[in-house]
Amino acid sequence: MISTHPDAPESPGATLAAFAADLCFSQIPEPVVRRTEDLLVDWFGSAVAGHAARPVASIARFARSQGPDTGPCEVIGSATGTSPYAAAQANAAASHVAEQDDVHNGSVFHPATVVFPPALAVAQALGASGRELLTACVAGYEVGIRVGEFLGRSHYRVFHTTGTAGTLAAAAAVGRLLGLDATGMRHAFGSAGTQSAGLWEFLRTAADSKQLHTAHAAGAGLMAAYLAADGFTGAAQILEGPQGMAAGMSIDADPARLADGLGTRWATAETSFKYHASCRHTHPAADALLQVMQAHGLGPQDLARVVTHVHQGAIDVLGPVTNPATVHQSKFSMGTVLALVAQYGHAGLAEFDAHYRSRATQALCGMVEMALDAEVDAAYPRRWIGKVTVITTDGRMLHGRVDEPKGDPGNTLSRAEITAKALRLAEHAGGVPPATMQAAVERLWGVAGWSAVGRLLPAVEEGGA
Amino acid sequence: MISTHPDAPESPGATLAAFAADLCFSQIPEPVVRRTEDLLVDWFGSAVAGHAARPVASIARFARSQGPDTGPCEVIGSATGTSPYAAAQANAAASHVAEQDDVHNGSVFHPATVVFPPALAVAQALGASGRELLTACVAGYEVGIRVGEFLGRSHYRVFHTTGTAGTLAAAAAVGRLLGLDATGMRHAFGSAGTQSAGLWEFLRTAADSKQLHTAHAAGAGLMAAYLAADGFTGAAQILEGPQGMAAGMSIDADPARLADGLGTRWATAETSFKYHASCRHTHPAADALLQVMQAHGLGPQDLARVVTHVHQGAIDVLGPVTNPATVHQSKFSMGTVLALVAQYGHAGLAEFDAHYRSRATQALCGMVEMALDAEVDAAYPRRWIGKVTVITTDGRMLHGRVDEPKGDPGNTLSRAEITAKALRLAEHAGGVPPATMQAAVERLWGVAGWSAVGRLLPAVEEGGA
Repeated sequence: MISTHPDAPESPGATLAAFAADLCFSQIPEPVVRRTEDLLVDWFGSAVAGHAARPVASIARFARSQGPDTGPCEVIGSATGTSPYAAAQANAAASHVAEQDDVHNGSVFHPATVVFPPALAVAQALGASGRELLTACVAGYEVGIRVGEFLGRSHYRVFHTTGTAGTLAAAAAVGRLLGLDATGMRHAFGSAGTQSAGLWEFLRTAADSKQLHTAHAAGAGLMAAYLAADGFTGAAQILEGPQGMAAGMSIDADPARLADGLGTRWATAETSFKYHASCRHTHPAADALLQVMQAHGLGPQDLARVVTHVHQGAIDVLGPVTNPATVHQSKFSMGTVLALVAQYGHAGLAEFDAHYRSRATQALCGMVEMALDAEVDAAYPRRWIGKVTVITTDGRMLHGRVDEPKGDPGNTLSRAEITAKALRLAEHAGGVPPATMQAAVERLWGVAGWSAVGRLLPAVEEGGA
Repeated sequence: MISTHPDAPESPGATLAAFAADLCFSQIPEPVVRRTEDLLVDWFGSAVAGHAARPVASIARFARSQGPDTGPCEVIGSATGTSPYAAAQANAAASHVAEQDDVHNGSVFHPATVVFPPALAVAQALGASGRELLTACVAGYEVGIRVGEFLGRSHYRVFHTTGTAGTLAAAAAVGRLLGLDATGMRHAFGSAGTQSAGLWEFLRTAADSKQLHTAHAAGAGLMAAYLAADGFTGAAQILEGPQGMAAGMSIDADPARLADGLGTRWATAETSFKYHASCRHTHPAADALLQVMQAHGLGPQDLARVVTHVHQGAIDVLGPVTNPATVHQSKFSMGTVLALVAQYGHAGLAEFDAHYRSRATQALCGMVEMALDAEVDAAYPRRWIGKVTVITTDGRMLHGRVDEPKGDPGNTLSRAEITAKALRLAEHAGGVPPATMQAAVERLWGVAGWSAVGRLLPAVEEGGA
């Protein structure tokens, strides 16, 4: 039913689609499988954390009102199931709002929130095994990360890469579960990429769009894969063609990135966990500030001025946030994040909720500025170096630096830290009792042994959604 | 619940949102109401024509499988209803595939296929009146056309404006039916625009994406309006902001177009009907060829060479189609369209299906070329001038010209012609008996008097979807 068009040439995008279609569990190195389990548990904590947030509840209400009342797919925090499409949209919205989900540095792309929700929903609908789920998710990570790298820095200046590359990532994961062949996967990529969307403009007025971007990517990518399985065709070169994604949305796209190291370089394992509950662009400076404060025994009262030496991407995303109006917007304020770190040693969900607009936070926030740094900018996005200069109230000039912020592959979280983070996130959100969450996380660590993927939380626990 | 962010400035986009939110039936001049009825009946014919086409059936199957089994919203050609979201996606896919739906010249935007499906679905869900439906559709047309004009020619080189501007058009129509105020409409625009997508790349390999673009625009725009009604916020300046649609997807955007003549200039009434069943970019040349052949009594056997003098947009869209592989792709082949017109006087659905790959068509197709014309290009997109030069087999050089192709506002279709076109379309598609279609069209001409919008086709008639 699906046929390759005679005019469809070989291309890096086609190679990437074939890789995603053909990926087998046995090909994935053991440490990459283990890291994928880490990422899944970490994602689950974020999804539980966000499930009852106002914008997420709006998306979940819409998706459920337009979908069936019952179905095999879990909406995190809800006792009743629905269709794969509705569940994928709701859970993708849920797992990005706490700003605690993972990030891949080189692509500036958040894979978990657009890969796990559609893959989980479809695995539940099909009764796929845990290994099939993990394999599909690795396909989603490998594809999404390479598409993000391909689209480049010019893309990220205007477009939210998690929304745009995310449609391809979701299509790859779902397409793998549906058993698409290489040609079918290429059609799925075509249908995903032509729905690719997500603009940063929403940050300027603290709007809710970030949750819509992930919901949209998960839903559109899932739809693209189902359509391909039904014989619906897509552009053969949606990524690199003359009227494709790069042509429309990038000026520095590099097609070579699409097939970079496929099968030998596992981009999944390069993914970083988030330690602070804020935009990843704030983390290097936050950790550098902690480093210099600890090294010199400084308290928040000792700070007179903090200059963060950053890459251009940080200025593009954080620069417009000069007077954060909401707790979510404050997670994109370099000043707020550093103020919380200076006071509490960590900018977590609890610190944001309790203190993001306190008098002390606002005072410290006003002392923080960003300056473009040539070294940091040249290393970005492959490495996210943190550098700060602190002027103390007694007139000293001190320098802080970290080369890998906490959570990066070289400074990663242990399974105990990932479990603790997930439990903390669930407790903060409420709606899921700690013992229930603890049992669910313990069970989830065994995902590779599951014969069929079922619910992650028991149906008797009704959350706040 | 919805609040305007303090940083949200006044802007042409905000003016346009307020216009859509505040539009009342009594403000719309009588001729514009009548033209909107014309456009609705014309759309209905296209939706019936396309409902069973393979790519449309795929999208309808997906939407229905992910939505509820029953509901108040009609999927054209199906006896059972579903949710507004699923019905809007299915019907939007259906009404663009026959290439017979309307087009607004200045914006190069096909309004009907992205405005009527979501508006009809929501009107059926709410039990809105015929006048409320018409008012909402005028809001959708006025918004979508202006957004298309705003995005400009550079946008159209890579992006399918019906897909991108279409999300805003759908959001405006649905938002008006849901009773959004000006602030709510602005949020709906933000959520619609940040999902805006659709790339021309698919044409190169004759893929099915055009139907996905309209389904996507209708679904995403409808979702944006429902979310806004639930308090979900969007970017205040998604159109003209520094990281908004124009920043990401245009280099010649003109914000002044967004609020151009609101309330005095009715862009709805500028919309053209399609006479030929092909890409609108082929129509001016097709009519010019007819003109010169009729003026000189030529038959197809008299043609040795035909040069069409066209605007750049025609070359951008039609140029890649050098060897059409499917009937749908052949509707984007200038040579095929002119070959059919030369032989049959009209390039309708029946002519395409029967003759698009015939030996005679292919021979004539090879005689047709496109050349950029300064006069035609300068007038475009406001006016679509048709100019051809014909070299006859006996060596004459003849010139054909039309200033308004058939279906344009100055050369429009009568209600009898619109009815006949709709009946012809339904008959061609099959699945809906002629008497049923005739009764449905007659009933639809009275839409302004309906107290509550119900099904357009009776539920007992099950079509091919």
